[in-house]
Amino acid sequence: MADEFNQPLSGNIMPRFAGPSTMMRLASASGPRGLDAAFVGVPFDLGTSNRAGTRFGPRQIRAESALLRPCNLGTGAAPFDRLRVADLGDVPLNPYNPGKSLAAIEEFFSALAREGCRPLALGGDHTITLPILRALHRQYGSLGLVHVDAHADCNDAMMGETVTHGTHIRRAVEEGLVTPSRVVQIGLRGTGYSPGDLDWGRDQGFTVVQAEQCWHISLAPLMNQVRQALGPGPVYLTYDIDGLDPSCAPGTGTPEPGGLTSAQGLEIIRGCQGLDLVGCDLVEVSPPYDPLGNTALLAANLLFEMLCVLPDRRPGS
Amino acid sequence: MADEFNQPLSGNIMPRFAGPSTMMRLASASGPRGLDAAFVGVPFDLGTSNRAGTRFGPRQIRAESALLRPCNLGTGAAPFDRLRVADLGDVPLNPYNPGKSLAAIEEFFSALAREGCRPLALGGDHTITLPILRALHRQYGSLGLVHVDAHADCNDAMMGETVTHGTHIRRAVEEGLVTPSRVVQIGLRGTGYSPGDLDWGRDQGFTVVQAEQCWHISLAPLMNQVRQALGPGPVYLTYDIDGLDPSCAPGTGTPEPGGLTSAQGLEIIRGCQGLDLVGCDLVEVSPPYDPLGNTALLAANLLFEMLCVLPDRRPGS
Amino acid sequence: MADEFNQPLSGNIMPRFAGPSTMMRLASASGPRGLDAAFVGVPFDLGTSNRAGTRFGPRQIRAESALLRPCNLGTGAAPFDRLRVADLGDVPLNPYNPGKSLAAIEEFFSALAREGCRPLALGGDHTITLPILRALHRQYGSLGLVHVDAHADCNDAMMGETVTHGTHIRRAVEEGLVTPSRVVQIGLRGTGYSPGDLDWGRDQGFTVVQAEQCWHISLAPLMNQVRQALGPGPVYLTYDIDGLDPSCAPGTGTPEPGGLTSAQGLEIIRGCQGLDLVGCDLVEVSPPYDPLGNTALLAANLLFEMLCVLPDRRPGS
Amino acid sequence: MADEFNQPLSGNIMPRFAGPSTMMRLASASGPRGLDAAFVGVPFDLGTSNRAGTRFGPRQIRAESALLRPCNLGTGAAPFDRLRVADLGDVPLNPYNPGKSLAAIEEFFSALAREGCRPLALGGDHTITLPILRALHRQYGSLGLVHVDAHADCNDAMMGETVTHGTHIRRAVEEGLVTPSRVVQIGLRGTGYSPGDLDWGRDQGFTVVQAEQCWHISLAPLMNQVRQALGPGPVYLTYDIDGLDPSCAPGTGTPEPGGLTSAQGLEIIRGCQGLDLVGCDLVEVSPPYDPLGNTALLAANLLFEMLCVLPDRRPGS
Amino acid sequence: MADEFNQPLSGNIMPRFAGPSTMMRLASASGPRGLDAAFVGVPFDLGTSNRAGTRFGPRQIRAESALLRPCNLGTGAAPFDRLRVADLGDVPLNPYNPGKSLAAIEEFFSALAREGCRPLALGGDHTITLPILRALHRQYGSLGLVHVDAHADCNDAMMGETVTHGTHIRRAVEEGLVTPSRVVQIGLRGTGYSPGDLDWGRDQGFTVVQAEQCWHISLAPLMNQVRQALGPGPVYLTYDIDGLDPSCAPGTGTPEPGGLTSAQGLEIIRGCQGLDLVGCDLVEVSPPYDPLGNTALLAANLLFEMLCVLPDRRPGS
Amino acid sequence: MADEFNQPLSGNIMPRFAGPSTMMRLASASGPRGLDAAFVGVPFDLGTSNRAGTRFGPRQIRAESALLRPCNLGTGAAPFDRLRVADLGDVPLNPYNPGKSLAAIEEFFSALAREGCRPLALGGDHTITLPILRALHRQYGSLGLVHVDAHADCNDAMMGETVTHGTHIRRAVEEGLVTPSRVVQIGLRGTGYSPGDLDWGRDQGFTVVQAEQCWHISLAPLMNQVRQALGPGPVYLTYDIDGLDPSCAPGTGTPEPGGLTSAQGLEIIRGCQGLDLVGCDLVEVSPPYDPLGNTALLAANLLFEMLCVLPDRRPGS
Repeated sequence: MADEFNQPLSGNIMPRFAGPSTMMRLASASGPRGLDAAFVGVPFDLGTSNRAGTRFGPRQIRAESALLRPCNLGTGAAPFDRLRVADLGDVPLNPYNPGKSLAAIEEFFSALAREGCRPLALGGDHTITLPILRALHRQYGSLGLVHVDAHADCNDAMMGETVTHGTHIRRAVEEGLVTPSRVVQIGLRGTGYSPGDLDWGRDQGFTVVQAEQCWHISLAPLMNQVRQALGPGPVYLTYDIDGLDPSCAPGTGTPEPGGLTSAQGLEIIRGCQGLDLVGCDLVEVSPPYDPLGNTALLAANLLFEMLCVLPDRRPGS
Repeated sequence: MADEFNQPLSGNIMPRFAGPSTMMRLASASGPRGLDAAFVGVPFDLGTSNRAGTRFGPRQIRAESALLRPCNLGTGAAPFDRLRVADLGDVPLNPYNPGKSLAAIEEFFSALAREGCRPLALGGDHTITLPILRALHRQYGSLGLVHVDAHADCNDAMMGETVTHGTHIRRAVEEGLVTPSRVVQIGLRGTGYSPGDLDWGRDQGFTVVQAEQCWHISLAPLMNQVRQALGPGPVYLTYDIDGLDPSCAPGTGTPEPGGLTSAQGLEIIRGCQGLDLVGCDLVEVSPPYDPLGNTALLAANLLFEMLCVLPDRRPGS
Repeated sequence: MADEFNQPLSGNIMPRFAGPSTMMRLASASGPRGLDAAFVGVPFDLGTSNRAGTRFGPRQIRAESALLRPCNLGTGAAPFDRLRVADLGDVPLNPYNPGKSLAAIEEFFSALAREGCRPLALGGDHTITLPILRALHRQYGSLGLVHVDAHADCNDAMMGETVTHGTHIRRAVEEGLVTPSRVVQIGLRGTGYSPGDLDWGRDQGFTVVQAEQCWHISLAPLMNQVRQALGPGPVYLTYDIDGLDPSCAPGTGTPEPGGLTSAQGLEIIRGCQGLDLVGCDLVEVSPPYDPLGNTALLAANLLFEMLCVLPDRRPGS
Repeated sequence: MADEFNQPLSGNIMPRFAGPSTMMRLASASGPRGLDAAFVGVPFDLGTSNRAGTRFGPRQIRAESALLRPCNLGTGAAPFDRLRVADLGDVPLNPYNPGKSLAAIEEFFSALAREGCRPLALGGDHTITLPILRALHRQYGSLGLVHVDAHADCNDAMMGETVTHGTHIRRAVEEGLVTPSRVVQIGLRGTGYSPGDLDWGRDQGFTVVQAEQCWHISLAPLMNQVRQALGPGPVYLTYDIDGLDPSCAPGTGTPEPGGLTSAQGLEIIRGCQGLDLVGCDLVEVSPPYDPLGNTALLAANLLFEMLCVLPDRRPGS
Repeated sequence: MADEFNQPLSGNIMPRFAGPSTMMRLASASGPRGLDAAFVGVPFDLGTSNRAGTRFGPRQIRAESALLRPCNLGTGAAPFDRLRVADLGDVPLNPYNPGKSLAAIEEFFSALAREGCRPLALGGDHTITLPILRALHRQYGSLGLVHVDAHADCNDAMMGETVTHGTHIRRAVEEGLVTPSRVVQIGLRGTGYSPGDLDWGRDQGFTVVQAEQCWHISLAPLMNQVRQALGPGPVYLTYDIDGLDPSCAPGTGTPEPGGLTSAQGLEIIRGCQGLDLVGCDLVEVSPPYDPLGNTALLAANLLFEMLCVLPDRRPGS
Repeated sequence: MADEFNQPLSGNIMPRFAGPSTMMRLASASGPRGLDAAFVGVPFDLGTSNRAGTRFGPRQIRAESALLRPCNLGTGAAPFDRLRVADLGDVPLNPYNPGKSLAAIEEFFSALAREGCRPLALGGDHTITLPILRALHRQYGSLGLVHVDAHADCNDAMMGETVTHGTHIRRAVEEGLVTPSRVVQIGLRGTGYSPGDLDWGRDQGFTVVQAEQCWHISLAPLMNQVRQALGPGPVYLTYDIDGLDPSCAPGTGTPEPGGLTSAQGLEIIRGCQGLDLVGCDLVEVSPPYDPLGNTALLAANLLFEMLCVLPDRRPGS
């Protein structure tokens, strides 16, 4: 289906309010073969503690992505000229059964990883990162992690459950999916169950950058450090839209004031240029709380920025 | 805590936009003892096929119920003068685990039923009716059922799952919780997987009144027939807000055009006067799709109307 | 300023989304002299028990009225060909002082009445009807009243206050502003403080038509009776938008399910044709609860329908 | 691409909030060959007099249509078992040039007509009906017309322009696209520029059914008459969503109170069963004024109902 | 009722979308005895010049506060481990009578002050600060004031009224409730009636920090100066949410562009650590203009941050 | 009509939610004679590529401007004391014909320019700048341009059309309306059709300041440079609200993340003090995407800030 350089449908051929509802109005593909990267919808929201609705995230992100053009004016990137990209549609989840859904996600992303296709996942709530990491780990081994979020997501359990949108990072460490010394968390803030809630990660070896450390400054210098710290191995970027301030990203389920600006949010992704990103996700966009669509539009831009910093496909992969 | 005739907090003592956020600003109670009836929140939405958000139903219905005064000007009912009523708060659900949540609901309502307290449940999605029926069946035996809805909810399974908001009525029949010949479904309409989707219930012996049969007319005559058909045994009233037309109840997850008017929606409840109602629910109000609160306000009124037609407590119960 | 037959600015001269923000894009006037009828904004909302916001009613009703054309296709009326009409702007209220505001309203409408100009008031909450009735009573003597509403507004006091949006009808009776036997209330429903809440009016001699009496039928026959009962004397029409069902008029402060349809709402006004209407109001549109503007647009249409049934100016008035 | 009986993607295979954003999650097709009927998006809104936004109508109608199942429970119709149907995507309009856009529409629908594929058009504003009628007329000759609307759309010009969303019916008559004696208009109401605004159509021989004639009654008898009057020749059904009351269809650009109920709106389409419908459209859904999506969901249902009453393909076409 | 260290209801016991609607799901208390601090709702909005609706502020702030956990991850504070805190419900205001309402507020807060319970008031409009200051002044003598706001609120009168949401600071000075040299105003900006509108406070001895002085920088250094300037005496913190930029706090009645960021808004409160805060308020959240609830959620966070910097109860108080 | 110093209607005479709906509640004027500056509505949106709705921009900006007082507290400006200003209403556009509308705009602004009245235009989409520049160029010769925007608007054509909201700057250069070396573009960012999309302007001699160059810093130094570069000749300020970040200005048609803050947006205008501004516009506010009105309120403030930096009328002009 692929093996070609797809280009987003141009606004000079079809008006932006029309045309297919794929990501950036790209071609659909029925499988990953021949693709360097692919957008995948993961409309899972059964791990959500507060406001629901991220099940509609992929649909709304795709709808708003129709505004995007193929080149990045801030960085000069033209990703569709060097990567074969398509939209693979949505993972066929079971909306009544969290366990089956998580298994379906893992299976879907395993198929991508086996083909060397790097996924750009449209969430869904943050629980989805766990099965994606399981799938990628199988292909790439233990991963580095850039984790943008208001929350550490390192709870041992929530209401006794071990797999939710607030526990997946701890599970990933415990399962060896990520290498703790290569984990960076950026944007953490807000309230917790104990003053030391962020120390669990630090104790594992995470680099934890609280939101307060980011206030009023450029994050480009931080990202220089991050790149040096993570080095050449495979890295996954997981991006919870609530890492950004609610003024930028109101449409999410557990907003926390005092977050990153959208400029900082872009600096983080652009600062990943040079890392060996093997996959990315953008999670926790909740359309019922985003009636204007601007949170989804921001998410679409962030996903495009992720595509822009994906490395070229390596020979043999 | 109970054994008294609670009255809603008056708007002449505390403004309607203030005061406690209990149902109708009634007293809270920590358990059912001594109560004839109780409002209970059941913020479960893990059985939902389309739009999410009913988890916030109880909170918003209670908030809007602050506008309600204690007497029914349409029927003359003054339920708080003859029934001991309180708000029992919410069932402590597990938002990540459907099975545990359903067990918690059944347990909670079993406790009510054992005390002879008749529940008025604030949903939540329609799945909650199954564990409530299980609880009430244990106390009262097989029940009659008045079921207001756009959908029959008689699927055998959805995505292979047997307990969802679209299967609970079939489960209730199979488990013997309801007596099919004493089941009445009102308001069914819309689209289905086969033209005979509504026949399963008819084949069991249900009385099925499609929305088309209700158009342009009063439902008072229908309810006269319903009362005669159901007779003197115990009856449960389950009321999906999407039985009403989306013009009346926009804030719900699977709206279907061509539904009942709010006047008809009131006629159905008022027409239950005389039945031995042992419990009621009002489900599928989704606050993210109800930004003005009017769907929740309608739901609050319908729950009050249900209270108005509850029979007096029987001696010995 | 007047003494001419103003016509609304045509949509063929200026697009409907442009032009002045007067009612129906009519000419403004600085005083009532020479006018047969006038639209007046009364943005008072200090008598409101629940949701606020009617202070923005006049602005939003005027904005939405830009869609209206000058002739009534349902009745054939062409009011601007027989009546001199203008928009007199807003009463200069004091938003911090209810008493001063009510005095300002009374003074403003007294000036209109003295000139024989019949007011069409854009509320504001329903409290405004009391000072308007005081002003008109001085000119016309005791009035008949057609009162469309979900609520009787006959409370003796609310929180101890005697002038609120729920007490003005009782005050009007006590002050002799209206003749009880010539008062008709249509659409009453919902909940109250006692089952007999609607009996106070009946005891005075009011004709009270509860919403239940209106369900499923045309109100044209009722209005025939109303016209006969009210006879030839001066009549005031006060129209609370919550008389209509919340499906038709969601943007209001104390909605009650089971109300009139918009068709019935039109039948009532059209059924006033032939009465000696000396003034009208449309109250309780709350724009913060009407984000689409459709409640205000409905209100604008109802105000236009009122204009259509205003009698011609009498000689000598 | 076609020559097969497509079925909508089932909610038991892919959750309703996921999957492709085609109409009813049908297969896409790149051309009409082999199709009996096709959904086509026509996101044109350059003929709009008041509120804008219908350019997003096709996208939102498709998104909401994901809730629809393949069979009609009200009528028993199973259209996908007898008709080959697909979604042909959107007409590639020019959003800056009305003339070029109208030409593109005509060309697109001409191609459908030549293949005998009956179009179901998703508007867009009502201007689109004119180029569609031009295309169908070339294939089928002069057409009968069932026109549901609040407005007659028979203006000679608006602001001097002869092709707008308020003039297309007059143009269709003048161009001989429709046979006036086979034109039925249902739902007309509101305000106009002269009391006789609806007489132009009557003078041509139209059957004009004003909204007032529809209040409180079933429209099934009316549709019996309509079918007899229209007889066996080809008929086009054009359905402006503002024919329905704003309570049912708030998300539109020129709403008029006192309109049809959604039940009546269904009766009209079902009453077209037996006519030789050669095409249909559903226009004037404006998503910016429909934040909950319920107007679009209603529109999706109406389009499905239209599909249900399409005749089987005739031999030889 | 108190004398115990209440903890907010945990999200591991009851889902965040469920449970009581008290502030942070704390225990309710019927009086201040034994409490170190208390949340109090003051739903007064009769002093408002522009958009209404702050009467619903307390209800919505409480609803959104359900997301808050008990510890401050930014500062390490764990206030519920050192302070006895409860929710005292709402002041029973009179929604029709500003004077009686202000008297009720003063009385309510006097009772708190007498018990040494430090209030955290949930407004309501800014007028409420005056009666609170009157109450606290009686207990503590003349107060220092940290005043975050877009507006100086130092008008002599508005429409001739001396007590409104724009005059209370001048009244507080005139009545000796605050010591002008210990008043700091932060965030002032926008438009005024004369270029010297902010000079009245400066002439009294206020420290006035206009918003322009805050742009692009951390406010931590400013707060160091503020603490030194205010010194050891009692201080009241009054926080108008419109001090923050409308991007952060859209849901308010008189928004002004160019305001503080939410990070700066947090820095101000955290910079009050060490002051002898005897009470705080958070005012001007208007839920009708905050449909997503994020302004209220921000307000809930700010109120929690205030609690975190409250001093320990002193012996003997 | 003018020759006097109009003052906005005071909030001490008429509440801010009442009074005329002119800009800042100024006097209306029927022509430019005697005016130094004038607000003009230009509700044109037929050049829009994505979300529609700017046709309602002037109406909503005026409505929200009612909150503005006459003096600038940030800069001390009191423009109404030195400039004769009025609201000239809306240009009478043709909503169906882009060409006629653009001609009407040019004609309207030519009349202003001839009278030496400096226009402050309320858009409408950005296409309107072209006919305004044509009109001003005729009076003042080639202009300098300060252009705030997310987009360069220098496309050669869109869908083949040469006059749209994305081509007007290139047309202005080609037509000699602006002097390229005196053009400054600030805030550009986002995605484009080629990485060099911003180079066309640079090649002409524009100063192009991308948004990334503005992140985290004050723009006052930049504006010092801009003033020096532009020098003493006539300058036009065109301000697309999407130059600001969507967090500040959500209500617009083509939002791009990573934009200017509202503080920076104010700094740009204030930094124009001293330039010979001969006209200004504020474009691309789309009310359907601004339900709270805060984008329009921001726009109203920006327009007032523009007025504050307009030079005094020169003798002889």
